Amino acid sequence: MKLHHVGIAVDDLDAAIDMYTTTFGAELTHRAAKEAAGLKAAFLQVGQAEVELRAPLRDDSTVGKFLARRGPGMHHVAYGVDDIREAMAGARAAGMELIDVEPRMGMHGTLIAFVHPKSAGGVLTEFVQL
Amino acid sequence: MKLHHVGIAVDDLDAAIDMYTTTFGAELTHRAAKEAAGLKAAFLQVGQAEVELRAPLRDDSTVGKFLARRGPGMHHVAYGVDDIREAMAGARAAGMELIDVEPRMGMHGTLIAFVHPKSAGGVLTEFVQL
Repeated sequence: MKLHHVGIAVDDLDAAIDMYTTTFGAELTHRAAKEAAGLKAAFLQVGQAEVELRAPLRDDSTVGKFLARRGPGMHHVAYGVDDIREAMAGARAAGMELIDVEPRMGMHGTLIAFVHPKSAGGVLTEFVQL
Repeated sequence: MKLHHVGIAVDDLDAAIDMYTTTFGAELTHRAAKEAAGLKAAFLQVGQAEVELRAPLRDDSTVGKFLARRGPGMHHVAYGVDDIREAMAGARAAGMELIDVEPRMGMHGTLIAFVHPKSAGGVLTEFVQL
């Protein structure tokens, strides 16, 4: 596995993009939105890994509720894997609870699956098919 | 800049090392402790970046208080930089508040400095001299 990206929840996507590109030297690679999930996102390259900034389209979205509860900040850590079903099976075998029982299409255009933070040391953990 | 590591606060360092090496395929590279800071840590390579697991030696340490307040989970994000003083000056110029006014020696054996999360979108952000 490789550290693929760090997900960060933000209130203002454009302001956050500006901070990461101007001050931290990150390079904006693409933007995406998932209307059904009430989510818009920006992906920034920082060396070999990425920062994913995600902001709510609606207050009642998952990221909107996260922001209301915890404020802006670190949201998840994602690992790139060669075989997502194998990674999911390994997590299950280790007693972890998967949020996604089946892999689903992520905003990078490959399959993803999330592991519940309560079974991964408090870290919302994502697998991304490479 | 490059994404250098993600810092994760844990209650039980050995259990967390086991989880990251067994289930997430990370490779333990070294351990360190800072008695004065009440902190012990383990560094794991995951692709081109690292996961830093940090656990308290004492409940009244910074990481002990973090765990009491927020529970285990994501703690900070660190960026590797070629010139830490330049990175710090850039952060200051962008209006960020530095926790470390001067760089100090980190557990990797190079200089580090932290940016206050309140001035970096809720993310405790670290610079690591490469």
